[in-house]
Formats: sequence, C-alpha cells, structure tokens
Amino acid sequence: MTESKQSHIPDKKQPSPVPDGACSFQLHAECVDTSARRGTLQTRRGSIETPAFMPVGTQGTVKGMLPEQLKEIGAQVILGNTYHLFLRPGHERLARLGGLHHFMNWDRPILTDSGGFQVFSLGDLRKIDERGVRFQSHLDGSAHMLTPELSIAIQEALGSDIMMVFDECIPHPSTRQYVIESTARSTRWAARCKAARSDSGAALFGIVQGGMHEDLRQQSAEQLLEIGFDGYALGGLSVGESADIMYQVMEWSLPLLPKDKPRYVMGVGTPENLVEAVSRGADMFDCVMPTRNARNGVLFTSFGKLSIKQARYVEDELPIDPDCDCYVCRNYSRAYLRHLYQSNEILASVLNTTHNLYYYLHLMSQMRNAIASGDFADFRDEFYRKRTVAGEA
Amino acid sequence: MTESKQSHIPDKKQPSPVPDGACSFQLHAECVDTSARRGTLQTRRGSIETPAFMPVGTQGTVKGMLPEQLKEIGAQVILGNTYHLFLRPGHERLARLGGLHHFMNWDRPILTDSGGFQVFSLGDLRKIDERGVRFQSHLDGSAHMLTPELSIAIQEALGSDIMMVFDECIPHPSTRQYVIESTARSTRWAARCKAARSDSGAALFGIVQGGMHEDLRQQSAEQLLEIGFDGYALGGLSVGESADIMYQVMEWSLPLLPKDKPRYVMGVGTPENLVEAVSRGADMFDCVMPTRNARNGVLFTSFGKLSIKQARYVEDELPIDPDCDCYVCRNYSRAYLRHLYQSNEILASVLNTTHNLYYYLHLMSQMRNAIASGDFADFRDEFYRKRTVAGEA
Repeated sequence: MTESKQSHIPDKKQPSPVPDGACSFQLHAECVDTSARRGTLQTRRGSIETPAFMPVGTQGTVKGMLPEQLKEIGAQVILGNTYHLFLRPGHERLARLGGLHHFMNWDRPILTDSGGFQVFSLGDLRKIDERGVRFQSHLDGSAHMLTPELSIAIQEALGSDIMMVFDECIPHPSTRQYVIESTARSTRWAARCKAARSDSGAALFGIVQGGMHEDLRQQSAEQLLEIGFDGYALGGLSVGESADIMYQVMEWSLPLLPKDKPRYVMGVGTPENLVEAVSRGADMFDCVMPTRNARNGVLFTSFGKLSIKQARYVEDELPIDPDCDCYVCRNYSRAYLRHLYQSNEILASVLNTTHNLYYYLHLMSQMRNAIASGDFADFRDEFYRKRTVAGEA
Repeated sequence: MTESKQSHIPDKKQPSPVPDGACSFQLHAECVDTSARRGTLQTRRGSIETPAFMPVGTQGTVKGMLPEQLKEIGAQVILGNTYHLFLRPGHERLARLGGLHHFMNWDRPILTDSGGFQVFSLGDLRKIDERGVRFQSHLDGSAHMLTPELSIAIQEALGSDIMMVFDECIPHPSTRQYVIESTARSTRWAARCKAARSDSGAALFGIVQGGMHEDLRQQSAEQLLEIGFDGYALGGLSVGESADIMYQVMEWSLPLLPKDKPRYVMGVGTPENLVEAVSRGADMFDCVMPTRNARNGVLFTSFGKLSIKQARYVEDELPIDPDCDCYVCRNYSRAYLRHLYQSNEILASVLNTTHNLYYYLHLMSQMRNAIASGDFADFRDEFYRKRTVAGEA
C-alpha cells in the first residue's frame, strides 16, 4: 500500500436544513481510488457503522432468526415492512403493544420502508391517485388506502428509527412520460411525508426516483434536497434492469447527494452489487436475497453461490465455505445441510439463513475495514479474484 | 415434611447378567409415598439424570432446535429414529460421515429406536414374517427388509449410545391371540438383537410387550429378563388406550423390572402421563407431543394447554405462562407468538418448540428435585392443583 492510498478524513460537516436530533452521520474515511466511504450513522437506538447491510424482517421477524442470533452475526439494524405490519397485526395494535421493537424483542435500530413498494406491486389490486394508493389486502381482500400521511403515521406507530418517504418504485421498463409523472408525484408525496412527521426522534429519508434517466434522477435528487431529509435513498433499482444500468444510475445519482448524509440503495442486491455500490459511495443496503435464497437452499460463499440441494454434496464433509468463520461453517457439513434441506427440516432454513446473513454482514464488515485502512481497491480485486478462480476450477 | 417422608438410598446394586461397560444405572432416592425413583444413567457419552425426558430428533434434528438451544433448556439425551435415518441419508453413509452425533453436532447421548414402530405403522406397505418386516419406503416406494440384525447394524452405524431391540408395537385393540403371537415373536427378535450386537459400548434395552393383558406383560418381562438387557422399556402404550388402562399396564409391568436397571416408557406422553408414570417407577420417556404440538400452536403450561392461535390472545401482553422462566416466556408476549403463528413464520415453530420442550424438561427436573428431597407426593398434588384452579377460573 503506497502512502497516496491512505484514506483521509472528510471536510467538516455542512450545516443541514433538516431537523436536528433524529440522526447524525459522521464520515470516518473515504477511499482515494473509489467513492467508497466509511461512516457512522447515529440513531436514537444506537449507531450503525457504514457501509451497512440491513436484514429484512418483513412481518416482525427476520425469517428463522432469533434477535440474539442476529446480534451474534453482527446485524446492527433491521428493516421492517410497513405494508405487512399495517395489515397484520396492525399499527395501532402494535403501538398499544409497545411498538415493534418491544413486540419482536429487538432493541437495536429499525428502519421501516413506506409500504409503497408492496402496494404498488399489487397490480390489479391497487389504484393510484394524487392522494395515495387504494389497494386490497393480499391476506383477506379488504380495501385500504395508503397515503403519505398514513405511511408516516404507521411508521411512527411502529416506533421506527429511520422512516422512508412514501413513493412509487417505478417499474422497468416504463415510458419516459410515466417516469416523469411518477417521480413528480413521489416528490410531492415526499414533501407531504415530511410535513406529516410528528416524531422528531425518528429520522426520515427521501428517495430519489427518476427511472433509468440521468436528467430525471438529477431533477429528483435536487428537489428532494430542497425539501431536506436526514438521509437519501436511491429507489427504483433491482427492478429487472441490467447490472450495468444499475451501476450507471448509481454513478449519476450518488454524487448528487450530500456527503454528510447517509446514502441508502434500496433493495440491492447480490454481493457483487454491494461491492460495486459501495465503490460508488453507497452506505446502506437491504435485500431479501440472503434470507430468501437461504430458504431455497442457495448459499453465498467467497467463491460464488452454492446450491445445497445438489446431489454432489450428499457425502461432502466440507463446510459451506471453508474460508467462512460462521457458526454453521464451524459446526456442520454440506452433507448435513443437504440432508436437512432434502428432509424439509426447519433447521435447514435456520442454518442456511444464519450462514447467508453472516456472509452479507461479514462482507460489509470487511469492506468497512478495507475502507478504513485504505485497502478497499485491493479488497475489491481480491473479492473478484476468489470468484474467478473458483469459476475456472 | 415429616421425617418418615425422607427418601432413602436403595440397596446396593445387584450383579447383572448383561455385559458391563455399556451403561450403568445408580439409584439415588426413592419416594416413600409412590414408586418414583431418582437415578443416574451413565452412558459412554455422559450421564442422564432420571427421571428424564428425551426430545425426539427424527431426521437428525429436533425440529426447529439447534443443539446449543437443546442444551440450554436442559436436554440430556435425544432420540434418533432408525427408520428415517436408514432411508435418508442412509446408515452406511452416516457411518462414513462420522456417525449421527458428528453429523448433527450433538455430543450428548443419543438413544435410537429400532425402526419397528415406523415400519409397523406403514400398514399396507409392510409384511411381517419371522425374519423381519418387508416394507416400502414412504419417501420413494423402494422395497426394504428390516430385521433384528439389520436394526442393530443400523443403530450401531449411527453410533447410538442406547439401542432398542426390534419389536412390534402392538396396535390397540388387538385380539389376545395376536398379542400372544406378536409378543412371542418380539421376544425371539429381542434375543436375536442381543446376539447381533457388536458394539459393546452401546447399551441395549429390551422392550416389554404383551398388550393390555397382565399375564402377557408378565410373561414378556420374565422372558426379556432371562435374556438380559442393560435396561427395560414398556412398549405398546400411547396407542389409543385410555389413561386408566395405560396406568394399569404400568402398575402391572414396572414392578416386574429390576430396580437396578433404567425403565423407559416409550412414546408417553402428556405432562399428566409423565407424572403418573414417574409415580409408578418409570425413569425415561420420549414423545413427539411437545415438539409436534408446538408446531401446531398448542403450548404446555403449569395451568394446562393453551392454543396460541385463538383470537383471545391477539393483544395479550402476558407470556405463555407467567410462571415459566424459559427464554420465550422471558422475552415474548402471547400477542407476538400468535402473530408469528398466524403469519406462518418459522420463528413460531422455533419459539413454541423452545417453550414446550423447556416445559417438559423443567417438569422432569422438578420431579427429580422433589423425589430427591422427599417431596414428590406434594409436588404431584401441587401439579394437579394448579391445573384444577385454572380449569375452574
């Protein structure tokens, strides 16, 4: 490592137009070769070292994991889904039961989505107008209307530490005209969300939309900055576009966001996506990929993905990844994990999820260390080298 | 407590006709009011304090539980199923993979059943003759023959610490003639099992059959004692007979068994059954009830059963059992557990199983303490009193 690769401490924080106290973000180091950054996001329920991955806890549980197990593998913050919790058990009930943290026995930060992604995914079951989205519950067909104001009320009732504005995650492909209209509406909704906020201890993040168009992304970012939020997210990614387009949108959008605010790339993605997004200056991520893939027997390793259901593992005494230090890799063989998967055992989901989440969280921890020590570019090279070698083997 | 209720140390162990070294059993205390006994069964993989309950780990896992979690709630020994493990992953493969303990990461004792119960339950898919039972796999229809010799070979390949003889668990009701023939065959098979045993470090238990007939139970016990085993089980219970008949069979059979050998009542039962069986001198139990009921949302408490799916718990902030000290009752409300169950979450099975197994294991621990301190009869009264009060409330 040459001296010129040393990371440097960024400039003093700029004054912020958003309310103080909800959260604060401090940058500790920036990569000189890439736009990767190492920071700390302070929330009312504790700090989050960034770049950070947030396991998804859709229905008040990260599927198959106890809170203690999540902590043991290094989860600093989890994501809760407003849509699901609104429908069941209901946000008013959750508030009476002491909020989501108490309900699910998780005392670290929770970021909540706005419910927008889920209601917009309902297809024929939903109808959009300026007020919000009318939709029918996927559980019982009951009719509801989700508005920016209700989304914030729900997130506050849950006791969210980081709330997201209610917006539309624009499908891909969409016409430019639709992207323009949808993004403009999302921006108006973002302003309504900020106005509706009553819990000054909960952070509120804006979400940049604008589809796969540079000028529309720029416009969206500028308008959100004008409103002013505690952090900024990129929405509308991982919706079927190619990785190249995804990275292009990050390159257009991330530099437009203030350096002294956390940047959250929503719903992304594969380990490669995370490395590339961090390289481009992203700080926070969530994705169902590690947990959902785990339940389907697809495991992440330093040498790529591994499908534990394959017959080749039936008598394989190796752990999932010989280079992995997780509880699963220290104690169980591929043969055992294949047996559990084939036998449809609950423990298959538990162990596979434990490993995959550890893989994701450990990857983030490795990136944080590499950025802090000025080795991020080397880390990224090595990350890809291990995958290539395995692919050739 | 009066002085006359003090427990006493039983007579010195009688010399045993079975091979030494496989296991040893020591009685520490006997109840003066009932036939309850407090002992220690020493196996090659550690000791089991009795009376003991053995969680069932059918397919190489106690459904939903990590080995560490089982230890934390006090599991001393678990049961493995010969039939299931023979079919998948296969006993020869398991032996190559280092045995069942290594495979599933469990270093405490494992008792294995003989596979008899499962193959006899296959109905039309099985055929019995003197050699053994021909059957078709419930997984793929493949044809197999399970014999006493193969059952022992499988149990030894698994690395069992306590093996069971291959026998028929006689259906109820059956004709007296069928019980006579079946029991006689099971006795011949028991002798073949003993002859087939090659692992002198694994204990082998005989199983008393004889249906619901006192004379046939007596005959079975006497013939098994003549062959000589490391311990003795009562089979053919919990097969649809009334609790009164079950207790009657225990009262006939248990006193026939040597005091200095462990007595295992197979497949039993409810908490009440366990208390009654312990009162009648039983030392060991296994049952799928706590684990299976847990997955169906039925939870055991000091005041009886509780069905967590009921709407009445939707906003109930109490733990499952306010008198329970388990991890689940210390951290989660009925409202949360109901939500997880209604949402079909993996964590519902994990938490419910943790509670139910804790309930069973803690019940055994309470009975051990009560026998040791001479308070067992009082304990039993209190056990029923709590249930009655709740029933009246």
